[in-house]
Amino acid sequence: MARKKRTYFFGPEGAEGDAGMKNLLGGKGANLAEMCNLNINVPPGFTITTETCVDYFNTSNNWPGGLNREIYTNLSRLEKETGKKFGGEQDPLLLSVRSGARASMPGMMDTVLNLGLNDLSIKGLTEKSNNEWFAQDSYRRFIMMFSDVVLGINRSEFENAIDIEKKRTGVTSDADLSIASLKSLVSKFKSITKKNTGNDFPQDPKKQLHLSISAVFTSWFNKRAKEYRRLYDIPDSWGTAVNVQSMVFGNMGEGSGTGVAFTRDPCTGKRDFFGEFLFNAQGEDVVAGIRTPLSIDEMGKRIPKARKELDRTYNKLEKHYRDMLDIEFTVENGKLFMLQTRVGKRTAEAAVRIAVEMVEEKMISRQEALNRVHPEQLDQLLHETIDPTAKLDVLTKGLPASPGAGVGMVVFTAEEAIEKAAIGGKLILVRKETSPEDIGGMNAAQGILTATGGMTSHAAVVARGMGKCCVAGAAGLKISHKNGLFTVGETAIHRGDWITLDGSTGRVIKGKAPLVKPKLSKAFRTLMSWADKVRKLKVRTNADTPHDSKIARKFGAEGIGLCRTEHMFFDSDRIVAMREMILANNKAERGEALEKLLPIQKNDFMGIFRAMEGLPVTVRLLDPPLHEFLPKNNDDYAVLAKDLGISVTDLKFRADSLEEFNPMLGHRGCRLGMTFPDIYAMQTRAIIEAACELTKSGTKVIPEIMIPLVGHYQELKVARENVVAVANTIIAKYGIKLKYSVGSMIELPRAAITADKIADYSDFFSFGTNDLTQTTFGISRDDSGKFLPFYVENEIFSDDPFVTIDSDGVGALIQIGIEKGRSTKPKLKVGICGEHGGEPKSVQFCHELGFDYVSCSPYRIPVARLAAAQAAVAKQKPKSLTPKKGKKSSI
Amino acid sequence: MARKKRTYFFGPEGAEGDAGMKNLLGGKGANLAEMCNLNINVPPGFTITTETCVDYFNTSNNWPGGLNREIYTNLSRLEKETGKKFGGEQDPLLLSVRSGARASMPGMMDTVLNLGLNDLSIKGLTEKSNNEWFAQDSYRRFIMMFSDVVLGINRSEFENAIDIEKKRTGVTSDADLSIASLKSLVSKFKSITKKNTGNDFPQDPKKQLHLSISAVFTSWFNKRAKEYRRLYDIPDSWGTAVNVQSMVFGNMGEGSGTGVAFTRDPCTGKRDFFGEFLFNAQGEDVVAGIRTPLSIDEMGKRIPKARKELDRTYNKLEKHYRDMLDIEFTVENGKLFMLQTRVGKRTAEAAVRIAVEMVEEKMISRQEALNRVHPEQLDQLLHETIDPTAKLDVLTKGLPASPGAGVGMVVFTAEEAIEKAAIGGKLILVRKETSPEDIGGMNAAQGILTATGGMTSHAAVVARGMGKCCVAGAAGLKISHKNGLFTVGETAIHRGDWITLDGSTGRVIKGKAPLVKPKLSKAFRTLMSWADKVRKLKVRTNADTPHDSKIARKFGAEGIGLCRTEHMFFDSDRIVAMREMILANNKAERGEALEKLLPIQKNDFMGIFRAMEGLPVTVRLLDPPLHEFLPKNNDDYAVLAKDLGISVTDLKFRADSLEEFNPMLGHRGCRLGMTFPDIYAMQTRAIIEAACELTKSGTKVIPEIMIPLVGHYQELKVARENVVAVANTIIAKYGIKLKYSVGSMIELPRAAITADKIADYSDFFSFGTNDLTQTTFGISRDDSGKFLPFYVENEIFSDDPFVTIDSDGVGALIQIGIEKGRSTKPKLKVGICGEHGGEPKSVQFCHELGFDYVSCSPYRIPVARLAAAQAAVAKQKPKSLTPKKGKKSSI
Repeated sequence: MARKKRTYFFGPEGAEGDAGMKNLLGGKGANLAEMCNLNINVPPGFTITTETCVDYFNTSNNWPGGLNREIYTNLSRLEKETGKKFGGEQDPLLLSVRSGARASMPGMMDTVLNLGLNDLSIKGLTEKSNNEWFAQDSYRRFIMMFSDVVLGINRSEFENAIDIEKKRTGVTSDADLSIASLKSLVSKFKSITKKNTGNDFPQDPKKQLHLSISAVFTSWFNKRAKEYRRLYDIPDSWGTAVNVQSMVFGNMGEGSGTGVAFTRDPCTGKRDFFGEFLFNAQGEDVVAGIRTPLSIDEMGKRIPKARKELDRTYNKLEKHYRDMLDIEFTVENGKLFMLQTRVGKRTAEAAVRIAVEMVEEKMISRQEALNRVHPEQLDQLLHETIDPTAKLDVLTKGLPASPGAGVGMVVFTAEEAIEKAAIGGKLILVRKETSPEDIGGMNAAQGILTATGGMTSHAAVVARGMGKCCVAGAAGLKISHKNGLFTVGETAIHRGDWITLDGSTGRVIKGKAPLVKPKLSKAFRTLMSWADKVRKLKVRTNADTPHDSKIARKFGAEGIGLCRTEHMFFDSDRIVAMREMILANNKAERGEALEKLLPIQKNDFMGIFRAMEGLPVTVRLLDPPLHEFLPKNNDDYAVLAKDLGISVTDLKFRADSLEEFNPMLGHRGCRLGMTFPDIYAMQTRAIIEAACELTKSGTKVIPEIMIPLVGHYQELKVARENVVAVANTIIAKYGIKLKYSVGSMIELPRAAITADKIADYSDFFSFGTNDLTQTTFGISRDDSGKFLPFYVENEIFSDDPFVTIDSDGVGALIQIGIEKGRSTKPKLKVGICGEHGGEPKSVQFCHELGFDYVSCSPYRIPVARLAAAQAAVAKQKPKSLTPKKGKKSSI
Repeated sequence: MARKKRTYFFGPEGAEGDAGMKNLLGGKGANLAEMCNLNINVPPGFTITTETCVDYFNTSNNWPGGLNREIYTNLSRLEKETGKKFGGEQDPLLLSVRSGARASMPGMMDTVLNLGLNDLSIKGLTEKSNNEWFAQDSYRRFIMMFSDVVLGINRSEFENAIDIEKKRTGVTSDADLSIASLKSLVSKFKSITKKNTGNDFPQDPKKQLHLSISAVFTSWFNKRAKEYRRLYDIPDSWGTAVNVQSMVFGNMGEGSGTGVAFTRDPCTGKRDFFGEFLFNAQGEDVVAGIRTPLSIDEMGKRIPKARKELDRTYNKLEKHYRDMLDIEFTVENGKLFMLQTRVGKRTAEAAVRIAVEMVEEKMISRQEALNRVHPEQLDQLLHETIDPTAKLDVLTKGLPASPGAGVGMVVFTAEEAIEKAAIGGKLILVRKETSPEDIGGMNAAQGILTATGGMTSHAAVVARGMGKCCVAGAAGLKISHKNGLFTVGETAIHRGDWITLDGSTGRVIKGKAPLVKPKLSKAFRTLMSWADKVRKLKVRTNADTPHDSKIARKFGAEGIGLCRTEHMFFDSDRIVAMREMILANNKAERGEALEKLLPIQKNDFMGIFRAMEGLPVTVRLLDPPLHEFLPKNNDDYAVLAKDLGISVTDLKFRADSLEEFNPMLGHRGCRLGMTFPDIYAMQTRAIIEAACELTKSGTKVIPEIMIPLVGHYQELKVARENVVAVANTIIAKYGIKLKYSVGSMIELPRAAITADKIADYSDFFSFGTNDLTQTTFGISRDDSGKFLPFYVENEIFSDDPFVTIDSDGVGALIQIGIEKGRSTKPKLKVGICGEHGGEPKSVQFCHELGFDYVSCSPYRIPVARLAAAQAAVAKQKPKSLTPKKGKKSSI
């Protein structure tokens, strides 16, 4: 068997690797090779493969076989190309050793610069450069960096020594330290090392190199790298490559320097070169923020030749990579060297603009443009956000439950929010957690802050549905209703005090932070129009009111996938009738209450149907357990008891009988439709009467009636028969033609498993993935806070299944459900109406499984439209994502 | 297309049908035909098929085409065979019209006798019989029966008329009424009919017949027939056959009479002919209990010839049908006519004895014998029962939650039960519902009575596990703790009053009812030994204590399939340590509490392992949510707070943080094992240390450690690694060899769907069908009381899925789980440990799916053993169940 090739050389003569070999060489290594191949001036070096790193871990950190031999071969070649000698006394070859994983993980892993210096080679460097300051500066940098990264000595010991030296000599900038000071620091640094390790600072350059490579490998598993990977879904198994490269020096005086730049503006996307530069400095100085960098224009003024070369280079690179790039470079005595290039990170606004403009510039195709924007990013564009330049007094951080920003005065009850909003107040509703009764108050507020609850808590879900910002589960928060305040640590915020919420980051900010308005640019509209042309999935919305329906339509909704009738019942003008209904002692009492609710519901449906004229509207019949509607306090009980003409004690007794041990699995959904068929009959009447009246006046209405929580086809059969009987009688009475359909939620494992039988009675399926996830996992969302975060953190679950569809389990059930359903009815319409309907990975999954549509909250619609387009494009042409040269993957 | 044959003639010349045609002719019709074919004297007649009945219903009660023609053809033939004329003035042919479904539904549907009488034919009957009393007696019977069954007039009007006439003439028995009285009654009956219907009593015999047949069809859907079918799982779709048969008369004087008999004693199974006879009477008189029937021996004394013929006949029939039979016959002027034969119903004791003795008599095979006993019946044999001859004062009826009987004094708290039992008291624990804390009290009591909760409530499940009788959900019961009593209607039962529970019927009885001991007969042991030889499924037990383990082993348990460790924690000597553990604020505090629990658990395991020496014992690690163990009252909180050295307020605050919205889907099962690995580590230590110590002293122990509520293979992987690490360390320390295995509960849909991955880390699967049913259906058992009874009653569900495995949904998931699991590990051991493990239909299902074992509560083990044998036999030889003649099905 051929021995594994462990290293890839790159240099002015060209490289062994290229940009397509990112998996093996890491992003940095692959792009260094690519630049060499493009004849761009890159200091020569070699890349140790990611495979080698993986081998290193798999053999309990043993040095991989064959690696040393290849390193020494490459070192010889480097010495030949540079004419320098590693550890040499005359003209020493110095190296940088840098990590570089497949995916960019900026600053997460370790780097060693100026490697190869020791008490002998420092002399050679001094002589050769004829710049003692530079040589000593490099040496003190090297000892400090090596000690920190490789030997694990706390940086601060070295930084303290520098500070003392600066104070002692009265200078403020490192660059102003005298040669004597630098020499003294070198000597002090060595003794710090000796004190900490018991040994002298290692003088053997090969040993230095060996130790540094090991340290870079090991840094793959440092805490911050692991955390970063978890956040960005990067597998631990990838490992990092290591780039060993000959040093060039930005710290050789005022004709030297180092810089970073973006080929276009990463905030706005404007086609402006955008960068920063430091004279007489090494790479880490820019990042470390020790000195304030200069604008890139300054570079042009002082070293115009290098600047011109830089412009030529970045243009060449951008054309080659066909994307906005983030570059790093060093100028050594006027000569430009490129040290890194990669695709640049950018804001949502910039991503959209760059993608669209690059199509206009004929650099990329429309399909590529669609893939250049992460759907999740679009969320940023739709909400007011806090001015990024503002100074903020952050009180605490909760979960970024619903994006956008809100500024308002603190209130603690929904009633107060409604009351104060009615007279023009701006309010933030602060609750331990919200309940359906709070909806009015949430709607009236600028934002919602809760002390408990997660990303899928009531507050979070409802707020996202409203497009209202929400910070949930702000654990530091202690609410005292009695004293009308909440505290965070020592700080108390009183009722009426101003705070600002940042729903995109979870920050809770004291006072009024300045906000910036969202702008839906022309580029945004262009991109979305391209998305709509290619996607196969329709995108509907979850909307319960005419208001939400209108917003959703503006964002491109192609109908309503889920209209939750129960949300209509919480308004104060109707909750009493609802309570009368659920606490009715017999059919007659219930009938009376239902008669009161009928005109209210009908009116709601008329508004929604009007807003969605010509588009389908799926109405889900009553779903939640009845006790959700129960009075919450004694006053409410008193009012209701009077209404019903019974005693409060009797009323509470009735209410108690509705309590359940596991309401999620209790008497709800179509189970209510079975035991109280008159409720569903009333709702059907409201829907169909509304539809008939609008149809009569020329408005096109497409009602779809959906039965929730079906587990057995018999339930659907009975419910459907009731609905059809009521509907057909009404339609006949109006004497018009009205098409309506009756379908089933598929949100229980049993429904998926027996979908062939359920399809017999179903015109459509809508997968309720919230409940399906709960029952498939046997996990209550509301109670998952005690273990689910632990699970995700410890990688027991790769994702929170309430955020991203669990494809192996829930997804497999969905697949069974669709296959079985379509085995009965090949053209069965299939949609999804859980929270997942607006989450890009889940949208992709729905596309793959052959869904007809997804449905999501109004503000998620653009996200879903783009995700659907990307899913469709992915199937069409994976090849269009490669760089011109035709290699597999770019950058 | 050939026309459907709607009627089948039978008579002395033989019959068109036979016993194999039960589906078409109903049980009665098929057996009448079979008896004719055996040359047994049966009055001729014909059977209208069940298909015809179904057609009648399917065409909205239209008279099926071709039926009249066939009826009239058969009537002509009857007239020819009997020499009588239907409606004739000389020698009228009278008919009986009787229902007869596939399955016996005794007394559920309607019958009309003496049909064909009218004002003309009564004269012919009088002349021909030369017995005016008989003729008038028959006429008044006919009018009354026809009016009741066909015209829907309340029987009591007629019965009142008889009573008045008897009083007026001073007689006590119907048989003593004078001819004049009978004539007067006939006339009175006619006017009752006219008053009620507005018409004269129908005189046209054909119209009488037509109406009677319709009435019998229609009676298929009367309320009691529907209820009976629901109880006995008989489909509505079957319909009933109708038997139209020429009348013979037991009411022609003292040489006539009518009787019913069993070929063996239906109570004990002894081979004694067992019957009752009434002279000068018609069939319904025996059943109606108007006159007290005589022993069958009296018949032999008075009409010995007929009696001899009867003995010959029943012996012939029993040999032919090879089973104990229930027969009906009439003697008309000394001549024996058989009117019905069918397999006789019998007690469990009789069923076992008859089956075993018939094998000894070489009438049937062992396999047939196994099929002759319904597994569910065996339950009767294992518990004390109420003396069936005792007079009882029944207070109310609840659900028969756990069989057997219990006599004791009423107590309302578990504490009192324990206290009083300790000094020898016999007690019945009466609770609204029980909780895990009541277990000690339940164990101390003779029986448990609850006011709420169903067949699968805590009380029911635990009581069955203990083999303790329980009546659950006695809805009429109102408990007043304050007054120390409960009331049922007007009756109050005080603390200390004696009551008796009948857990087999659900009766709650005032006072001490006399009980009879169970006897496990030799026949029972013989039958069980045959069962054990043929069954493929192993039968294990669910047992949590050494005591239960011993009982289970006595009943034939082949190991423990489920040992619930949490039940061990509720005893008063350990609950405090348990509470300290769950309310611990940190790992150290928890560690201290766990150290206290370790020796207790270890001791329990030693007892259980000893009881199960040489057999596998599956121990499930902690499963329930921690809040189940929380203190229930302020005293307990006070004690605990002192123990923990914190304030009661702080303690309650900690306790509150454990509350959950849906505890069933909350922080429980292996989720506890993930977040508190030290709990599982302690339990593993207790199990393995106990096993090691016993192994060292020569006791063979086979521990199997089971991880509950696994949803994702990662959970099992982590839990398994922890268990194995702890176990191997201990085994190494003891320096012995001990084999143990680690397996997974499969009780969540996701576990079944991803079983291939879970099997990678699992030595065995145990399907927890209680939780799997809850999650697959999305139904909480505890909350299902509001709709599940409605569902079963209205046939939305054919069975309660918590009693019988839902094969279409839950069963399909189990099948997927087994197939996927064995695709990874072909020899994976698979068991079931839900309540279903002791339910015959579910046991059969487990056999078909290839399970290795079922596990059930100790007292269900014989049931499971027999059910497993029947499942195995069913696969082997379906043919062995037919009568000698070789027809498809017998009776």
